[in-house]
Amino acid sequence: MDKYTKEKIKSIVGSNNFFDSKEDKLVYSYDGTPIYQHLPEAVLFPQDDEQISQILKLANQEKFNVVPRGSGTGLSGGAVPVDNSVVIVMTRWNKILEIDAANLTALVEPGVVTGILQKEVEKINLFYPPDPASYNICTIGGNVANNAGGLRGLKYGVTKNYVLGVEMIMPNGELLKTGGKNMKDVAGYNLRDFIVGSEGTIGIVTKVLLKLIPKPLHTITLLVIFDKLVDAGKTVSDIIAAHITPSMMEFLDNTTINCVEDYAKIGLPRTSEAILLIEVDGRGTEVQEDAELIRKIAIKNNASALKGAANEAEANILKTARRTAFSALARRMPTTILEDVTVPRSVLPVMIEKIVKATKIFDVTIGNFGHAGDGNLHPTCLTDERNQAEIDKAHKAFDFIFNEAIKLGGTITGEHGTGLSKKHFLEKLVGPAGVDMMKRIKSAIDENNILNPGKIFTLSPKCEGTLPINREQIKDFHA
Amino acid sequence: MDKYTKEKIKSIVGSNNFFDSKEDKLVYSYDGTPIYQHLPEAVLFPQDDEQISQILKLANQEKFNVVPRGSGTGLSGGAVPVDNSVVIVMTRWNKILEIDAANLTALVEPGVVTGILQKEVEKINLFYPPDPASYNICTIGGNVANNAGGLRGLKYGVTKNYVLGVEMIMPNGELLKTGGKNMKDVAGYNLRDFIVGSEGTIGIVTKVLLKLIPKPLHTITLLVIFDKLVDAGKTVSDIIAAHITPSMMEFLDNTTINCVEDYAKIGLPRTSEAILLIEVDGRGTEVQEDAELIRKIAIKNNASALKGAANEAEANILKTARRTAFSALARRMPTTILEDVTVPRSVLPVMIEKIVKATKIFDVTIGNFGHAGDGNLHPTCLTDERNQAEIDKAHKAFDFIFNEAIKLGGTITGEHGTGLSKKHFLEKLVGPAGVDMMKRIKSAIDENNILNPGKIFTLSPKCEGTLPINREQIKDFHA
Repeated sequence: MDKYTKEKIKSIVGSNNFFDSKEDKLVYSYDGTPIYQHLPEAVLFPQDDEQISQILKLANQEKFNVVPRGSGTGLSGGAVPVDNSVVIVMTRWNKILEIDAANLTALVEPGVVTGILQKEVEKINLFYPPDPASYNICTIGGNVANNAGGLRGLKYGVTKNYVLGVEMIMPNGELLKTGGKNMKDVAGYNLRDFIVGSEGTIGIVTKVLLKLIPKPLHTITLLVIFDKLVDAGKTVSDIIAAHITPSMMEFLDNTTINCVEDYAKIGLPRTSEAILLIEVDGRGTEVQEDAELIRKIAIKNNASALKGAANEAEANILKTARRTAFSALARRMPTTILEDVTVPRSVLPVMIEKIVKATKIFDVTIGNFGHAGDGNLHPTCLTDERNQAEIDKAHKAFDFIFNEAIKLGGTITGEHGTGLSKKHFLEKLVGPAGVDMMKRIKSAIDENNILNPGKIFTLSPKCEGTLPINREQIKDFHA
Repeated sequence: MDKYTKEKIKSIVGSNNFFDSKEDKLVYSYDGTPIYQHLPEAVLFPQDDEQISQILKLANQEKFNVVPRGSGTGLSGGAVPVDNSVVIVMTRWNKILEIDAANLTALVEPGVVTGILQKEVEKINLFYPPDPASYNICTIGGNVANNAGGLRGLKYGVTKNYVLGVEMIMPNGELLKTGGKNMKDVAGYNLRDFIVGSEGTIGIVTKVLLKLIPKPLHTITLLVIFDKLVDAGKTVSDIIAAHITPSMMEFLDNTTINCVEDYAKIGLPRTSEAILLIEVDGRGTEVQEDAELIRKIAIKNNASALKGAANEAEANILKTARRTAFSALARRMPTTILEDVTVPRSVLPVMIEKIVKATKIFDVTIGNFGHAGDGNLHPTCLTDERNQAEIDKAHKAFDFIFNEAIKLGGTITGEHGTGLSKKHFLEKLVGPAGVDMMKRIKSAIDENNILNPGKIFTLSPKCEGTLPINREQIKDFHA
């Protein structure tokens, strides 16, 4: 990027909000995804819609790339800079603009942290269900970009089920407003739901209107321990077959149990093959009844122990086991590659077996945990990115896992997005017609392919340049 | 359309599935929307994906238009033929291909009647919630095309909340498969949710995979009668504020009450200004508790009478009052223009007042009913399309109503679609940037604008030709 362009950008955002020292650029050269890293040309903190619009217009003129990001907790490389790019950081857009108790909505800026919004609305007995495990750090904008899920997806759905409206600056610099406080709206194409999950490739979101729901009155949290993995799988199927819809039904395998226990020291049984963390909630006696039925199903399926939380504090301790799974696994080895395969619920036990098989075939360590009720697993490979042979083995194991998931009618990503790390699998999943349609839409909206190019699919290889990782760029830092 | 093209089309679908007599064309020249009518060049009943693909490829070659339709119950003109078009009728694609009790899904052809699917899944205690009032006639394909809502939208959402996957033939003749039995899937752009509500303009849907849920165990149905409209509005707000989410909260005004009573003779009070039909359902005691709380709220707000259904048969009689509203109003006058404004729930009483005001300003008769819990009203003008002065008044009244809805943060259509009848209001609602983005996407997917052109927005005026109505074409039939 030439000096002239940089000066123009600086004049748009102001020199206080423009950073291009090597150290500044390094901080924004990666997100939560291992291996992917690339330095941007500059890091920008725009202050309003107009500044974002002007940057995008200039990007079209001067042909540089723009990569938007929030907290950077993404796990598919969606916020990793590309060649000749500036990063637009939205974390300072962190105001909750309105909580409308009459219409059960919240209007927020994209930089609001998900967990902070949840706490705010719970103060008035409202509830914002989507809860990615990173809820204490991740932002609503990132959640919208990736259609983030979380632990409560089974009963309450994912981010798209709660987005009523989005304001965004399109790649041509124009402001697009979609949706509103209406519970139903079918006027024109459904742009709003298309924006959710588009990974920052078709616009930069500047406002989000969210749907809230009444907070459940009663919650029961259970931790169920199984000697055998197969019994945990059977329990999940039986609960669904009994027409119970828990608000949470989370799974941890033995590797994960041990890493969590090392980390959190909450008394998890180190020899058990599986734990299920189950929560039921609601307004009436069905909560107690469902919990009782779940107990019976678990016991029938040889559960070795059942722990019920006596109160919210105890429930939070049990949930900590699940929420810290990723961090706990990450402590074990220098590099943690966490994946996100999802399969139809009926074949979840088969998928778990395939993952175990992958560890044996490719001689890798994979901890497995995830949202069992949704069929969404997070097999996590503990490896070392400095050792290319190890990384190659991990990639082969995941290729095997993705292929098996697709064969089972599953998908390559349930809630993390396609980004950079899964795009080479997209065509296998959605077919050439699917990728073709996506590319057509992207090209129609972003004519010069300046906005987060190379994410989801490759439209123009030159934009991506040296991705996934530009080792030359960052060698000084690793030295 | 020349003879050569017609022969080619006939050779694709077979002469048994090709109709072009004037009488045949007349039958498919309209849908459920008054005033709009246009004869197609031919009516086709393709038998498989390949035939649809070939028709679309030929349409691109020979530049004719293709208009898909199901039962034709649409209320915005979405299935009305355009100039130089063939109609593709999907009603014979009426097989339920699979009900998967383990994964809670149903795979259906688009011509399956919504009500038939509901009955089938209820046999095994599953539930398909979307229930447009036309559920006994309308098809799943039409529901998907319009993202249909219905009486249970408040608690259970609309069609898009239940579409897990769609197979469709794109305008270029290629088959696109989206989604699957996974409860979560964020691989690539969300094409699936974009297809839902696209009104047959970006593809012809040939298979739909639907999500099912467990059937609620308990249901309580209440009919609440109010002398004063304002008290009904207050009751709706108070129920939402009490954090109750009824599965149904329907409203009928005095005009509608009287038309329904004339038609169904179920003992509705002819002098009351409003009725609310409320249903609560669920798995436990909260159903009874919520019903009790609703009773208290209604009484506090001066309800003049409350009727509870003692059993399912009685509940169905109460629901008949609401479900027959449109048919009952339609008997009163030769032409019934039913609209679909939706506003944030908190301003529903204001919107109801504005509609009453419209009847006075423009001297028209409007019956008003709808999904009060969603803020979705169906003001229905009783008029006579043979009298242009009357129709002009009706249009002016609805222009006023739409403008007021937009001012209140509402939308021009909650569940019927934009089609032909509301497209002139789209830009006012979504802005030039919104319409521009929609047109870009349509052009990217349907390069020659051959698929249901002129619906939602005008891309190329010549395709629409003589719409809304070609009186010359149909004068012989009306003579």
